[in-house]
Amino acid sequence: MASESDLHRHIFARSADLARTFPHVLIGPGDDCAVVASSPTLLLTVDHVVEHRHFTSDLPIDLIARKAIARSASDIAAMAGSPAWSLAAAILPPDYPHADALFDACDRWARALNAPLVGGDVATGPPGSPLSLSITMGGSPNPHRGPVLRSTARPGDDVFITGRIGGSLPSGRHAAFSPRVAEAAYLAHALGHALHAMIDISDGLGRDAARVAAASGVRLEIDASLIPLHPERAGDPRAAVADGEDYELLFTAPAGSFHTLRPPASLAPFTRIGRVTQGQGCTLLIAGAPPMDLSSAGWDHT
Amino acid sequence: MASESDLHRHIFARSADLARTFPHVLIGPGDDCAVVASSPTLLLTVDHVVEHRHFTSDLPIDLIARKAIARSASDIAAMAGSPAWSLAAAILPPDYPHADALFDACDRWARALNAPLVGGDVATGPPGSPLSLSITMGGSPNPHRGPVLRSTARPGDDVFITGRIGGSLPSGRHAAFSPRVAEAAYLAHALGHALHAMIDISDGLGRDAARVAAASGVRLEIDASLIPLHPERAGDPRAAVADGEDYELLFTAPAGSFHTLRPPASLAPFTRIGRVTQGQGCTLLIAGAPPMDLSSAGWDHT
Repeated sequence: MASESDLHRHIFARSADLARTFPHVLIGPGDDCAVVASSPTLLLTVDHVVEHRHFTSDLPIDLIARKAIARSASDIAAMAGSPAWSLAAAILPPDYPHADALFDACDRWARALNAPLVGGDVATGPPGSPLSLSITMGGSPNPHRGPVLRSTARPGDDVFITGRIGGSLPSGRHAAFSPRVAEAAYLAHALGHALHAMIDISDGLGRDAARVAAASGVRLEIDASLIPLHPERAGDPRAAVADGEDYELLFTAPAGSFHTLRPPASLAPFTRIGRVTQGQGCTLLIAGAPPMDLSSAGWDHT
Repeated sequence: MASESDLHRHIFARSADLARTFPHVLIGPGDDCAVVASSPTLLLTVDHVVEHRHFTSDLPIDLIARKAIARSASDIAAMAGSPAWSLAAAILPPDYPHADALFDACDRWARALNAPLVGGDVATGPPGSPLSLSITMGGSPNPHRGPVLRSTARPGDDVFITGRIGGSLPSGRHAAFSPRVAEAAYLAHALGHALHAMIDISDGLGRDAARVAAASGVRLEIDASLIPLHPERAGDPRAAVADGEDYELLFTAPAGSFHTLRPPASLAPFTRIGRVTQGQGCTLLIAGAPPMDLSSAGWDHT
């Protein structure tokens, strides 16, 4: 990269058509602030990926960008929202040769997820700096349901997840997943206010299910035999619930409310994996084995 | 820091009163997304500070946080907007002992600038990582004037700056400045649509004045003898315009439109430093010396 100015020129040129494609982008990159038209209620999240922590140095640039953008979109999905815009802040190692390519990939994935990049900041770090990319994303809540919190699960709910879990890191899915935006929108539309609580299970089904229990003041019981597993973890639900980096959604809805739904085949499958009761904590029930406390299972990114 | 979870608990406890103090914060830190009530038009910016690049390792934690928050608020001010909320993404060196203090300082400065921290992300970097802090800020435009761009200066305008410039780094002001939010709001109110163009001069008066000229398709002539200088650069406007890190505002308004204003004494002073003409480029006029092209003067943060 020749200079920050050169990269800025590249970014502005690449963004010149933004407002045509995304009419809510009133002023894109290039001024002190971006200006966007906003929904009255706004969802906000920021997430970053750091080299050696969230990805290895040999991960292709396109997947670094994809993971960074998709992680934030997964947070918007977890509230049943629609991504609207994003901002990127990158710290590059000294003499990093791929800044243009990294920005282009971020721009492409952000557009693909309907969260166009409207601004950013780039700095070159001191020697030894890892590559890092921080993505802020804004979104609008589902107009029918509003934001779906993790604190509103109720006794009598069933517990569901989208897709399958386990083995995300060894399989490479941790950087190539599709955030469940469409699945969340379907649930909010089809279940309405019966969609009680939702979370993305990026830190592991165990830890994130326990967060729903704690935030809602209820108890979650997960049936190990019901958890849909990826091949890498076939037969090992105990390991799968601790794996993390799955970016599937866990949600709760009153028992029976889901039976009559016929989700389109284009969506990831929805699977009932347990139930919500009165009490506290989160337990994995395993046939022929003692139940496993899930509260501390899963990733701690520190 | 014991773990990310411990820091999260600290942050959630510290943020529990947010919604009481800032009623537009509907859901603060602790869920997948924050939820805020938004103005229909939203200003957005992200800026980061990186150890060894934007601050030295001996800068007190309070000033690291202050600088990070204030840099983004300065971008909102440059559009004549009001800060509304912020999000922080921090990458900490391994075994960083001051995570709680850093968050508390961010929280305090964000509240002080009316941009409460509604969310964030914390990661520990690999060995060798510099401390970095990326602040995304949203704001609402001035309801009377709307967003003030850098691309709308017109021939016949005078050029003004707030405060004084030069010597920001050696003086320590680079980390202890007050973003000119109130000054910008006053200008938008008092001048209305006669407030033609504005920018914050964080990369140096020279470079940022040249950006206004380029974006507006006009020529800016700055009179060196009119530039108000800090004592560190007294008598040396040529050096001062290249110093950077001043975080003052440069703005343009039709000649004469400012004469009748009587700004409150509580605001930083406004000083006319030049004029806008037809043409292109940005020149510093110096009595008894050849004019100096300002287009490449100033900071390139790379």
